[in-house]
This record gives sequence, structure tokens and C-alpha cells, in this order.
Amino acid sequence: MHETETRAGWLSHDELRDARDRLPILYVNLVPVRVDEHSQVTSVGLLLRVTESGEFQRELVSGRVLYHERLRDAVLRHVERDLGPMALPQVPISPQPFAIAEYFPTPGVTPFHDPRQHAVALGYVVVLMGDCAAQGNALDLAWLTPEEAAELAVTPEMAGGHGVLLRQALAHLGHSV
Amino acid sequence: MHETETRAGWLSHDELRDARDRLPILYVNLVPVRVDEHSQVTSVGLLLRVTESGEFQRELVSGRVLYHERLRDAVLRHVERDLGPMALPQVPISPQPFAIAEYFPTPGVTPFHDPRQHAVALGYVVVLMGDCAAQGNALDLAWLTPEEAAELAVTPEMAGGHGVLLRQALAHLGHSV
Amino acid sequence: MHETETRAGWLSHDELRDARDRLPILYVNLVPVRVDEHSQVTSVGLLLRVTESGEFQRELVSGRVLYHERLRDAVLRHVERDLGPMALPQVPISPQPFAIAEYFPTPGVTPFHDPRQHAVALGYVVVLMGDCAAQGNALDLAWLTPEEAAELAVTPEMAGGHGVLLRQALAHLGHSV
Amino acid sequence: MHETETRAGWLSHDELRDARDRLPILYVNLVPVRVDEHSQVTSVGLLLRVTESGEFQRELVSGRVLYHERLRDAVLRHVERDLGPMALPQVPISPQPFAIAEYFPTPGVTPFHDPRQHAVALGYVVVLMGDCAAQGNALDLAWLTPEEAAELAVTPEMAGGHGVLLRQALAHLGHSV
Repeated sequence: MHETETRAGWLSHDELRDARDRLPILYVNLVPVRVDEHSQVTSVGLLLRVTESGEFQRELVSGRVLYHERLRDAVLRHVERDLGPMALPQVPISPQPFAIAEYFPTPGVTPFHDPRQHAVALGYVVVLMGDCAAQGNALDLAWLTPEEAAELAVTPEMAGGHGVLLRQALAHLGHSV
Repeated sequence: MHETETRAGWLSHDELRDARDRLPILYVNLVPVRVDEHSQVTSVGLLLRVTESGEFQRELVSGRVLYHERLRDAVLRHVERDLGPMALPQVPISPQPFAIAEYFPTPGVTPFHDPRQHAVALGYVVVLMGDCAAQGNALDLAWLTPEEAAELAVTPEMAGGHGVLLRQALAHLGHSV
Repeated sequence: MHETETRAGWLSHDELRDARDRLPILYVNLVPVRVDEHSQVTSVGLLLRVTESGEFQRELVSGRVLYHERLRDAVLRHVERDLGPMALPQVPISPQPFAIAEYFPTPGVTPFHDPRQHAVALGYVVVLMGDCAAQGNALDLAWLTPEEAAELAVTPEMAGGHGVLLRQALAHLGHSV
Repeated sequence: MHETETRAGWLSHDELRDARDRLPILYVNLVPVRVDEHSQVTSVGLLLRVTESGEFQRELVSGRVLYHERLRDAVLRHVERDLGPMALPQVPISPQPFAIAEYFPTPGVTPFHDPRQHAVALGYVVVLMGDCAAQGNALDLAWLTPEEAAELAVTPEMAGGHGVLLRQALAHLGHSV
């Protein structure tokens, strides 16, 4: 789960590091999709990043919920940060997430692993109506068919849990996984 | 639950009457809403009809699922039949309904009652992006705030279960009911 | 989806065949599980049947909802019919299914296929607390780990859609699929 | 939301106060219910507490998720803390909550208000099979019918959001609210 907070003032780097040693940190994990006129998913958007050790990773849109920030606003903020201001996301109408991902610093406790912290992510599918382009430190945004995305999700390119959550999202949308 | 099938050929009137004495009939019950840019519901659309005994009723969009019809197509067909061809509905991306309404011909078995039949309805919230106008034998389409809709839902104008399902929908969307 | 109605009187064989040519038929598809004290799934129960053409099939518990039958009663009836009177099933507390499976007589419309009919099944996970034994024309009941069940679900032994729904259930329960 | 952490070592009082000024704090909000053999809710359990200003409040079981604690363990821990070691709770089999409650320190942002902090609570219904008794600083545990609970939920005795979440839970369970 990559994260770049562009807004200052909530927590300094040191304070965030301290909190991460003490509390579960609340995240949203977002599965960007395009749909046809029947709302069937036609493609899934995945970000391409390079890790510090030089490996390519495919990722969902993901980030922290800030103090005094509504979940709906966190969804919009992270989509804009990663996919740009013209993405025209449809925030889900219900706050009920399709899944909860519990990322533990210790591998193997759950299918989700984040070496930096204990994070609990609310999973949402976000339909995009506009033009998307990878922003910030993402190298690329790729649109895959649901079948291609489901296959990529089980490869090492989607390690750590994003692949698991992606397949849970596809199952929730009625797809065969 | 009013119903006018404009397509012929699935079941004759007599055959449908027979089936209704023997089998639960599958329905969709749709809660039409408009949302703001954060996907918060700003208004709920309710149809006005006059019953055979001359009473005014406020209703959701509702209708049968036909043989060999996908649920997504049934949602689109019933929205177009009741709200017109310019309504631009967003079919829910997941087939999972927010609720199941079991309408029994015998009152009191569940909060849902349909004197004509045993119907099982899948409840969905449908966001409308376009222009809506009451069609067919609906007299009017009214847009109410979520609060107004929640109040109307407990009056005799929404008897039989549509009011119950409407409040369940508002609860699912995070509203206080 | 195998089905043996042990109660008479709702529909004759001929009438049911007629209805199946005209209407979607309402089903429940049930995923039997055992859980530990944290409600984590420890095993999934699958029925073994032999098809008319002599092939072995692994199946979920599945069956029609009858006229004037509540969904909760249909769940209990089908579990008792397939797993015996001592199975002590926990019916789900919410009527909201985890998934909807649309079985079409035409293959390929959805991942779900039933050559006999258009059936729409509400998917539920059912926790079993008691002693289960295959009943009727099921040859055996096997308890698999979630991982074993997920693997079996993609083989021809679970064709027609039960395997798809099983994996959707495991995803809904938080498992990696 | 009352809270007494009986385990030491995660955060000192001062550290928790600091974190509460900086981060949303993750909670679980639990609706304790008893069910009949069809899993229909027969009663809802509410805790009675006295606030610092001397008012009686009816509350759900609620508490923080600790660092490196699984959600399932947090559910069990808070039920045992409030209802005793013989309550025999059934943790929900799916981690998907029925609702998300966003408690803001500023009243009016959402229907949920907590003057101490920004808390995000995952809502779950927990079936209790054993003997429950109010523990710690709760004065009493009352079992109400779903109808009684729904009525109490809109009174000042359930201010701050627990009443809202309780009614959302009843709606999710298929009740008329």
C-alpha cells in the first residue's frame, strides 16, 4: 500500500510512525472499474509502481482516512491523487464495504500483509466515468478485462493482499473467480 | 405492487394467474434516487397511483423478472417503463440486493403483503442521472428528500411493504431511520 | 441442481415442467460450513452425487422455494432433506444473500447453467452445529478445508455454477480465492 | 461509547489522548441479539449506563480494536468484557459489517457523534447463545423485543448514534423500522 499524503498538517512523519506502532490505521482500498450500460464491469484499473527493491507491482488505489475526514471524502481524495482530477469517480452510495482487509505487520496472520503497520482497510468498488491517468509516483495505469485482472491478481505482481481483495471484489460483482 | 407487462408472449393472463397460485413469483423492487457528487442521496423518487378502490398510493418501481431475462435487464426495463426512456439509470454493479422482501398473500406473515400472490422481491437502489417522468398508469413522480421519504414511508400511503423496504434502503445507505 | 420434493401438493410434475418453460424459478443455494470458536470456517460440506450420465458431481445444498414458504423455512427444509434431521443448521440472521446466482437454460449467459430451467438462486452460508449425513440420492457428504474446497470448485466435478458460487462464498467470508 | 481497556501496554492514557486528536480510531459496534430456531431475532440486549452528568443511557457493546488484534478477537473481547465469560457469542462468519458508523467530535456531520474523538466503527450483529450479565460499569443488561428496541432507539436514552445503528441493524435483519 503506497501512500503519499499531499495535504500537510495532520501528522508529522515521526508522529505517524509512532501511531503506526500503537494503533490500527484506517485505510480505504479502492477497486477502480469501468462499466457498460448494464453496469457490468468491462475493465479494472491497476496502478503500476516500482518498489524500493526494484520490483514491479500492480496496485489498487489505496490510502489512509484522515482525522475528521469522511469516508466519502477519503475515497474522492485518493482517486484524484492516483487517477487525476478528471476521473469522475462514482463513490459507492452505501458506506457498507464489500470486504474488510486486515493488513498485519506479521505475515500469515491474514492474507493481507503490510510490513509498516497494522492497517484495516474498507474495500469499495469505484466506477470511473471520466479520463484517468496515473499520477504521482505511479508509472502507469493499465485497464484489464475482469478475466485478465483475476489472473494477474494471483501473481507475485499483486502480492501483499491487493490481489486477494481484487478477486474478492470480482466475486462480489458476480464474476467467476 | 402495480405491474403492466408491455411485452407479450411469456405468459397469458390465465397462465400467470395459475402460476401465482402455485409458485413464488420473482420481482425486483427498485428505490429510485438522485445523488450529489459525493454519492449522498439528495432525493428519492416515488410514483403516485390510484388503487381500484380510489386511494392514493406512493410506490417504488416494481415488477416481475421474466423468463430468460437477466436481473440487470429487468431493472432497466422496469425503470424505463415507469420513469421513461431518458431516466439514465445506473444499475447496481453487484447483483447482491440490499434486502429481500417476501410478499405473502396472507397479511402478517412478514411486513410485506400482496393479496394477488406470493412474490419474492430483490431490493436494489437505482441512481438516476437523466430526466424522469411518470409513465403508464402512474399519475405522478415526486422527488422527496430522504427525510420526507422516510416519514411518508410509515403512512398508509405506502402500505403493503414498499414503505418498509424504502426505510430499509435508507438505513442501508447510512441514513437515520 | 438436484431436487427431490418430498412434500406433495404444490405442483404436479407436468405443472412444474410447464412453469419451468415460462417463469424464473426461485431457489436457495446453501454453502454448508463448520466453524471454530472465532467463527472462522474450518470445513465446507459438499454432497457427492452421480448424474444420469454416470459422472460424479460435488454439489451444494440446493432446492426450490415453495408457494407460501418463507425463505428461512426453505433453508431449514433443504438442509434437513440433504444433511439429515440432526444437522442443527444456523439459518443466516439476515435475509440478505451473499450472492445471487442466475441459472440459465442457455449455457454462457452467466457462469451458472441449468439445462432444465431459468432458476434464480439466493446464496446463503449455513453453519452446521450437529451431526450431518448424506440423505436421499446423495452418495456421500465430504468435509473439506476451505483451501481444498476452493480447489475442487474449479474442477469439472463442480460444473454448472456450484463451484463458482462456492468460491464467491469463500471470498465473502474473507478467504483468499 | 464507553470503554475500559483491561489489558495494559498498547497506549498510555496520554498517548491515547494524543492519537485521538490526530487519527480516526477504529471501533466495533456490536448489536447483541437472541434468536429462535429459525434465526429470527427474539430479543436485543442493551446495556444501561449512567453518564458523568447523571443521565441514564442505553448502549450497544462497543470498543476499540487494539494494535495487532484481529477484528474477530476484538468482537469476542468486548462481548466478554460487557456481557461476561458465559455469553457464548457467535462472531459473524463474514468480516463484512452490516454498516459503518462514522462518529465525529463535531455534532451534525453524520448521525453519529462522539465528543472525545473521530471514531469509525464497524457494525456487527452478534448472536448470544449463553448466559449474559452486565459487567464492569454497566448497571444492567436489558433484553427487549425488536419492536421495543426500535422504539427505545429513537429516544434520548440512545443519543449519539447507538440508536441509529441499532435501527440500521434491525432493518438489515429484515425488520420494519
